[in-house]
Formats: sequence, C-alpha cells, structure tokens
Amino acid sequence: MKRYRNGEIWDFEREMPVSRDGSDVILGLDGGATSTVCVCLPVMPCSEQLPDPLPVLARAVAGCSNHNSVGESAARETLEQVMAEALSKAGSNRFAVRAVCLAVSGVNHPIDQQHILNWLRDVFPSHVKLFVHNDAVAALASGTMGNLHGCVLIAGTGTISYGFTEDGREARAAGAGPILGDLGSGYGIAAQALTAVIRAYDGRGKESMLTSMILDTLGLSSPDELIGWTYADPSWARIAALVPVVVSCAEAGDQVANKILLDSVDELAASVKAVVRRLELCGKDGKGSFPLVMVGGVLEANKSWDIGKEVINCILKDYPGAHPIRPKVEPAVGAALLAWNFFMKESEDGHR
Amino acid sequence: MKRYRNGEIWDFEREMPVSRDGSDVILGLDGGATSTVCVCLPVMPCSEQLPDPLPVLARAVAGCSNHNSVGESAARETLEQVMAEALSKAGSNRFAVRAVCLAVSGVNHPIDQQHILNWLRDVFPSHVKLFVHNDAVAALASGTMGNLHGCVLIAGTGTISYGFTEDGREARAAGAGPILGDLGSGYGIAAQALTAVIRAYDGRGKESMLTSMILDTLGLSSPDELIGWTYADPSWARIAALVPVVVSCAEAGDQVANKILLDSVDELAASVKAVVRRLELCGKDGKGSFPLVMVGGVLEANKSWDIGKEVINCILKDYPGAHPIRPKVEPAVGAALLAWNFFMKESEDGHR
Repeated sequence: MKRYRNGEIWDFEREMPVSRDGSDVILGLDGGATSTVCVCLPVMPCSEQLPDPLPVLARAVAGCSNHNSVGESAARETLEQVMAEALSKAGSNRFAVRAVCLAVSGVNHPIDQQHILNWLRDVFPSHVKLFVHNDAVAALASGTMGNLHGCVLIAGTGTISYGFTEDGREARAAGAGPILGDLGSGYGIAAQALTAVIRAYDGRGKESMLTSMILDTLGLSSPDELIGWTYADPSWARIAALVPVVVSCAEAGDQVANKILLDSVDELAASVKAVVRRLELCGKDGKGSFPLVMVGGVLEANKSWDIGKEVINCILKDYPGAHPIRPKVEPAVGAALLAWNFFMKESEDGHR
Repeated sequence: MKRYRNGEIWDFEREMPVSRDGSDVILGLDGGATSTVCVCLPVMPCSEQLPDPLPVLARAVAGCSNHNSVGESAARETLEQVMAEALSKAGSNRFAVRAVCLAVSGVNHPIDQQHILNWLRDVFPSHVKLFVHNDAVAALASGTMGNLHGCVLIAGTGTISYGFTEDGREARAAGAGPILGDLGSGYGIAAQALTAVIRAYDGRGKESMLTSMILDTLGLSSPDELIGWTYADPSWARIAALVPVVVSCAEAGDQVANKILLDSVDELAASVKAVVRRLELCGKDGKGSFPLVMVGGVLEANKSWDIGKEVINCILKDYPGAHPIRPKVEPAVGAALLAWNFFMKESEDGHR
C-alpha cells in the first residue's frame, strides 16, 4: 500500500487518528458516463432487516470515471480522489476500510476488471476485500439491497441489461454504446427522432410533429441546421436530452414519435429477455420469480406514454415471474451493500 | 485582396512574374472528410468537345477541410494552402485566376456558403468569379463534365444525394452524418455489421459469419472486445473500412450480411428517389432522362454482390430515364469544369 500516492490525495490521513475499534467502514462506488458517486457505510451487524434509512456516513461526487472516455490514468485519479473525499468526510481512513465495491461503466471484459484491481490493490491495505464490476451491477444491487440476483435494465443516455443467478453466473445484453446499436437508449430514441426530422425534410420520410417541436426546443429555424448542431458537440447526453420532446409528441398522438417509442420498448425488452433466457432466471419452466430492477431516465420520466411500464408489460408476457423493482437507494449505495454482503459472507465462512 | 496573408502561404508570388496574357487559369477544389484536392486548369476556349485528356496544369493535396470537423480557421488555412500550392506548381499566381469553385463537405446551409465566400473574397482579386458548394456538387460535375444537371449519389464513408435541374434548382437528401441516420453509407453498413455481432453474442440476434470474419480482420478474440475497439478511435472511416468484410460474408451466402446490404441498397436508392421526385428530374411523366452520377467506395468495390448495380436497378424501376454515369475524372476536376462553365457563360452573357 502506497501511503501518499498521486500528490495529496491521501494527505488528509496524516491528520487523522488511526482506525478506532468498531468504526470499520465499507465503500461503494458508482461510476457512470457523467459522474462518479462514492458512499461510505459502517460495517453493520448481520440481521434479517437492514436499517431504514441506511446510516450513510458520507457521500462524495466526482466526474466521469469511464476509462474508455477519459483514459486510464484520469479515470484512476477520479476514482481515488472520490474515495479519499468520502473517507475524509466520514472522519475515517483507509485502515478502517473492510471492503470496497467499485462499479464503473467501461468494465466490459475481465481485462478491464484486472486493470482496475491491479492499481486498487496498491491503494488499500492487503486485507481489504476488493470487488470491481460494471456499473450496471451497482444498479441491480440498489434494487435488491445488495443481493446479487435478478436482472437490471438501465435506460438513461445509454442502455444495458445485466443479470446474475443466485449461484453466481452472470450475463449482459446491449450496453455496447450507440455505434454498436443501443437503439432503446435515450441517445438512441433522440437520434432516431432527429433522423426522422431530416428524412421528412429531404423527402425520404413522413412529416411529423417532431420537426417543429425539436427545432423549437433547440432554437433552430430549419432542419438543415441540425447537421451543424449535432457536429458541434458529439456528447451523447446532449442528444439524449431530447427524449422528453419525443415522448410529448407521442403523447399528442404523433405516429412517427409513437413508432420510435414502440421500437425502443421492443429493444429494451429484448435485451432483458436475452439475459433472462441465457441465465434461466425464470427457471426451467419459464415461470420462476426473479427481481427485475428498472433504472434510468428513459424508464422513469414519462406521464401518459410510460416507456418503463410498456417494457415491463412486454417482458411479463414472456416471463410472468418477473418482479419489477424501482430502487429506493442510489446505485453507489447498492455497490456498498454488495461489498458489505460479500464481506459478511466471507467473515461467516471464515468463522465456520 | 490581402497579398501576404497567413504567414507565408502566398510568399511564392513575390518570385513569380505577374500574369502573362493567355495563361489564365481556373481552380477547382474538392474538400472531403479525409482530404482536400485542388486542381489548376487553363481557361480553355469554348468548344463542343473538351480536350481528352484534360490539360491539368497542377494538382495539390491537403488534409480535411470540413469546418465542422476541424474548425473554421483550420479549414480556411488548409483551403488557402492547397490553392497556393496548386498555383505555385502550375507556375501561376492569383492574378491569373479567372474563377474558383470550392466544393467542400460541411457546406450544408447558405450560412456556411457565406462564411467561406467572406474570406475567399479577401484572398483573390475582386474580378475573380467565386463559387462555393457542398462537395457533392463537384462529384456531380465530375460525371457530367461540368454540367450542373442531374443527380449524384455518393456512398463512401458517408453518403449523400445531390441534384440540380437545368434551370438551377437544387435539392439534397441524406448527407447528415451517421448520428442523423445515413444508414446506406460505408459507416452505416459497417456499424450495422458490428451491431449484428454484438446482438448475436448477447442473445438478441441471429448467429452469422460476420462474427468470425470481423474478429479475424480486427485481430480480436471475443465480441465484447469490440466495445473497447469502437471507443478507442471514433473515426468513421476506420469503421467504414469493414465494408468489404460485410460484402464477402454476403457473397458467401450469409443471411445477416445480405440483409444489411439489401437495406443499404434501399436506403441509398431512397435518397436518390427523394431528390429526383422533389426536382422532377424525370419530368412530369416520370420518364424523362437525367444523368445519375455514382461515386464512392461502397458503389465501386464489389464483385458478385454489386451494391452500385443493385442501387441503379432499384432506381430504374421507378425512374427508367435515369442514365448512370461512373465519372472518369476526379471531383476536383469536376469543380474546375464547373467554375470554367460558369466563367464562359458569364463571359458570353457579357459579350452580348
């Protein structure tokens, strides 16, 4: 363990007392495309019921920590900094940490996982339990309160389905980014709406309400200005921010917008079904029960046209045992509960 | 006219004799996504037949000059430099120039055109005729030898259809970039193939030959490595380079690859049809004759699965008067011929 790596990140520990007995902590991190959240939880005694509300000791927020987007060293620095800030705010330090669960977008392959574990091992004392996952795993755990079982569907700017069986097998679908066809994502929905505007303008597609609604929203006067607008800033989140406009058009009866949302529902449901099928989450007979955690702006922020509800209905037709859950805690807390569960399980195993 | 703008770009003129009588020249520029070409042609006498081969005095090549990609000042510097180099190689200078046609990708709106004309006016003496167009216009002119009539379909990394009537009306379709749905482009074809690999891998789509063929081509061992590969370098040309792999799979009978190519043919033909319909290029009865210029790697580089031929067949079904042309000169020469045509027409009008 390197005590004072990366400039002053861990300097605060010099002025801290070393770990006091009974103040052991757990760190949970959720690193998404736009921000990274770290929460610090106490090591709670094992009981049937988790305290409500959970005794979150500290919470820290930083920028993007996806190594695909910002590069490996920037991602690492962000992750280390946000952990140091959470520990410092909690009046704790690395010697008090028992387990860390780092759930970061961009972890798509065992190699990504190993890269992160390699440097994370240097940051903490050797007895600390370390877990590295895709950020979807934190979202799943936020719905199941740390239990790694079921399927999560995330549909925000991007989309992914991720599932775990109770015996530890895992599978994912989608989540490969818009180049690789995440059509049900917020970006996908908005890009299809922008495409519909261009197609109507140049004579390839049907006229729709999307044209006036999107141009008004963006303050543009003609569809050909959309080309410059999309080039000006290729951020996916900026494009995905148009989803509410598409939903409004569909709610007002626009057929083109309605078709885009129906296609997205099919895409999102298909990614969940692929995971459920591969993991047999519904048992051999297809009727078994499993948690289906639903997360992200696309699944939440609708009124009469409710994308989330339509996705659930589409999944229930094939898998009636799916049990939809809208998480009450944030993904970083899910990650912390995951770390806590692992830690308690290993402690129990150790005592036997 | 500023004589020595932008450092030393025009310094070579100091050591040149001023324009000699009878050595008037024309400049034609084609600025695409990857490179910019400038050719210098002599002002030829007006005759029924153009000399073959054309007496190209000089040719210069530079990088990307799309202001959307590289920014306005870098685009301008590239354009000015490539013109200076062509003139210098031709042993000529700006005082000998009679007309310039600048056809650059990224000119999607009259505002883009005006921006370029504003600084171009400063570069040349005030009597020089200046024309600014989208680069598709140069491609059209390369097929019609400078005659601005008909429709061009470009399908390389990107795709666009652009048409002109004999009385000067114009229309375009597609060409808005991949975010805005240019599905028939090389990028679009390859991105759909990559998506098919991911969908087969995660259980959402059918297995196909594309998986092994694409992984082999890229030297990857598993489809989940494609995520890192696409993120590593978002260049559209890098992705579009996979088109020959998709064509090979379709030629070997793969159904998924075949479907991607068939969809692309429909998309490409639809963009031409939209332009032809809007401009009534085929006359009121739909049977009139018009030039259909076909340009770009997607339309050229096929063997038994010939995308270009399929697109032509699809267009001929609706518009039997379409007259397909594969250009024999490059787009920059088309731009120069366009400038020459304009110049000769204006000279004739002036003499009357």
